[in-house]
Amino acid sequence: MSIRVTVWNEFRHEKKNETVRAIYPDGMHKVIASALGKAGDLSVRTATLDEPEHGLTQEVVDGTDVLIWWGHMAHSDVQEAIVDRVQEAVLKGMGLIVLHSGHYSKIFRRMMGTTCGLCWREAAEREVLWLTKPGHPIVEGITEPCIILPQTEMYGEPFDIPEAEETIFISSFAGGEVFRSGCTWQRGAGKVFYFRPGHETYPIYHDPTVQKVITNACRWAAKRGTKSLDCPNRPMGWFEKK
Amino acid sequence: MSIRVTVWNEFRHEKKNETVRAIYPDGMHKVIASALGKAGDLSVRTATLDEPEHGLTQEVVDGTDVLIWWGHMAHSDVQEAIVDRVQEAVLKGMGLIVLHSGHYSKIFRRMMGTTCGLCWREAAEREVLWLTKPGHPIVEGITEPCIILPQTEMYGEPFDIPEAEETIFISSFAGGEVFRSGCTWQRGAGKVFYFRPGHETYPIYHDPTVQKVITNACRWAAKRGTKSLDCPNRPMGWFEKK
Amino acid sequence: MSIRVTVWNEFRHEKKNETVRAIYPDGMHKVIASALGKAGDLSVRTATLDEPEHGLTQEVVDGTDVLIWWGHMAHSDVQEAIVDRVQEAVLKGMGLIVLHSGHYSKIFRRMMGTTCGLCWREAAEREVLWLTKPGHPIVEGITEPCIILPQTEMYGEPFDIPEAEETIFISSFAGGEVFRSGCTWQRGAGKVFYFRPGHETYPIYHDPTVQKVITNACRWAAKRGTKSLDCPNRPMGWFEKK
Amino acid sequence: MSIRVTVWNEFRHEKKNETVRAIYPDGMHKVIASALGKAGDLSVRTATLDEPEHGLTQEVVDGTDVLIWWGHMAHSDVQEAIVDRVQEAVLKGMGLIVLHSGHYSKIFRRMMGTTCGLCWREAAEREVLWLTKPGHPIVEGITEPCIILPQTEMYGEPFDIPEAEETIFISSFAGGEVFRSGCTWQRGAGKVFYFRPGHETYPIYHDPTVQKVITNACRWAAKRGTKSLDCPNRPMGWFEKK
Repeated sequence: MSIRVTVWNEFRHEKKNETVRAIYPDGMHKVIASALGKAGDLSVRTATLDEPEHGLTQEVVDGTDVLIWWGHMAHSDVQEAIVDRVQEAVLKGMGLIVLHSGHYSKIFRRMMGTTCGLCWREAAEREVLWLTKPGHPIVEGITEPCIILPQTEMYGEPFDIPEAEETIFISSFAGGEVFRSGCTWQRGAGKVFYFRPGHETYPIYHDPTVQKVITNACRWAAKRGTKSLDCPNRPMGWFEKK
Repeated sequence: MSIRVTVWNEFRHEKKNETVRAIYPDGMHKVIASALGKAGDLSVRTATLDEPEHGLTQEVVDGTDVLIWWGHMAHSDVQEAIVDRVQEAVLKGMGLIVLHSGHYSKIFRRMMGTTCGLCWREAAEREVLWLTKPGHPIVEGITEPCIILPQTEMYGEPFDIPEAEETIFISSFAGGEVFRSGCTWQRGAGKVFYFRPGHETYPIYHDPTVQKVITNACRWAAKRGTKSLDCPNRPMGWFEKK
Repeated sequence: MSIRVTVWNEFRHEKKNETVRAIYPDGMHKVIASALGKAGDLSVRTATLDEPEHGLTQEVVDGTDVLIWWGHMAHSDVQEAIVDRVQEAVLKGMGLIVLHSGHYSKIFRRMMGTTCGLCWREAAEREVLWLTKPGHPIVEGITEPCIILPQTEMYGEPFDIPEAEETIFISSFAGGEVFRSGCTWQRGAGKVFYFRPGHETYPIYHDPTVQKVITNACRWAAKRGTKSLDCPNRPMGWFEKK
Repeated sequence: MSIRVTVWNEFRHEKKNETVRAIYPDGMHKVIASALGKAGDLSVRTATLDEPEHGLTQEVVDGTDVLIWWGHMAHSDVQEAIVDRVQEAVLKGMGLIVLHSGHYSKIFRRMMGTTCGLCWREAAEREVLWLTKPGHPIVEGITEPCIILPQTEMYGEPFDIPEAEETIFISSFAGGEVFRSGCTWQRGAGKVFYFRPGHETYPIYHDPTVQKVITNACRWAAKRGTKSLDCPNRPMGWFEKK
């Protein structure tokens, strides 16, 4: 059975900025969705901020095994009720992949409990993402020891996250900074993967290796089981009588 | 220099319920504060829900190295702005000790990113808290392999928390359930300790071993350094020119 | 493609002790292998201590995606060279499932770096294994909140292991002790799962739920990728010139 | 009471190589010990490979709260019996600080369970160690966001270690590689800190910030309590009758 992926994009930069539109005429979500669709085992749809309920109705969320999240300029426009819905779905088992500036999204900050802050610079500099966990499913098929992106926005440490449960990538930048660019956590029955690449003014989601990582991450994060969020009262001996 | 501890209590059960008042006439916070005060190296004050700003003004929070939190029936009465303030202080380095039904407090759920739900039963049953990490500062001076509490409310697994960074205690109950009764995490520069004992209708905070654990936990969690929560823009080469 | 599982058993108790032989006439490994074989997606073979190279030749290890380990009375008879071989395979990506008294095996102690000691008692008492991580692949299809084993050897905390990366089960025993009965770690590219059930004088590996957990664990731990264990010298700029 | 620190050094390079001797005429251990001695709260001694029992008699180990380890060319000359003794002491609560090429020491590989391999290059290049966990005791008093070392040997990822429990530093090198330069783990009751700086042909242990980190790490890792390594048989109800 296919893994059901929903690619969520704020989809504002693409409408407002010509440079971004030139790279992603239909939005970043369409480029990502198209790449994932080619994998064969992923069934992909998209959702964006300005759709009703941000495109994330209860029905859509219930039918999603992995949600990919890209946001930047409009984090505060995301309704709390939708964030509640997504958080609940993650805790019950839905995977969550947060991309680039999504580090500051409501949903990521909720799952982490920290500010998720970092240092940054826009200088079109080279980033090298080093594989720190070769053999992990998220880097399957990546045979080089690093991924080189010629022009990126810099994100630098300290990255205010809870200690990663798995560190998949660490980046260095031409300017000398470092960043934990690929990290995983589990929250409830859900798996969370943060992946740094993806500034809107560079064609990063057209990069086949970046696409491969996101594809792998969908397989890794896909919902496997369900966790109840009930908090039941239990009479003495209830489990023996069942 | 003393460790500055603030014991926060919802302080509602004690006012409304005669059984509770009989055990804690001045509130649980007073019993806990008195026990901590005897340690010698802790400088202790208290704060409660019905004080202005819940007793947690910016000045109080700024002057607190460890905050202890007990709440139950009035979690929803805690203002979001105060939760924001406490969360920020924890990320900057303040320790946070969450007791018993505080598992469902806004602040604990914020720090964890999960529901913090569990199973429960009130049957005045025996709890045995097993030391799973002997040698840890939180169990310093506890020479027995377990702490026995003759009458407690039961909390049972699954406890919906992120995997503990340190598991200090695991409880068994007379009815057969188990629970991770002492767990630690770090969030930003702050240390968080969840400690299960403490139902309001049993005299648990009068127990000297329970008091010793909380005292130890204050020393373990005390603010040691400060983390900035800024997200600065950094020009190329900034760190070399300093 | 099938997951290639090798079930390793010390296979001494079954030869020496009539009680054990009555329960496992062909050895515990045969009962486990038979159960796993019924899953359909696992290709299973067995290996035992008294075979040449303990049945774990380089060829067998190279052809194994998951190794299951049961040992007890003869841990010290396992050759260091074979332990080296298994450890290397795990670090390169082979899964390792350690059962019951295997907690004291050379291979498990090597992977953990600790004594892996615990408290114990043989009193044929009831064990209840509580699911602490519902929704995890290792408990897939287990719909009850706990697994009840009517007669077991007791293992009690403190269990001298590095903090578990995932806690899957915690047991309570009739006598009141608790134990982390299902724990996972990663070492190199390999996944390690310790699962407590399985004393040789109780028919525990005939239990269908225990069999289901081990089957699930094989799928969870199966080798996914390969990690090189080289420690190469790298000239300046090597990764850019490739 | 003072924290009792033992600085262990292989002390072979200094005897054989004139360049090293020029930087560390009495050995690296003496420079480190002298720096730690100035802290005031540390009581410091040294031990070296060519002393009887490598200077680590049972009496010395029993009187040590933190052991610092530097080795490189003679890892294989360290006797297994002494490694056993040190490992046991760590599990019982002694702190262990492993420096630079000590990543390949027997004791560090034992505690980790992995190869502890990495990539490397000697090109006298600049290393920048970024603080990833500001506010942590190990970086107390370090007010800059990074430590700059003008000439170092490069160590590059993947570093074959179990996932760090705390990541304190991540380095970038002039050549573009990255490395987790400061990591912590707990094993038994002992705390372990790996700290990368320190090649023998650069005067790195003369650097006051490097000295400050090691001083802080001694305070952080110091033995706080004791863990028994027994594996006792427990009769039914033993804990209730005590």
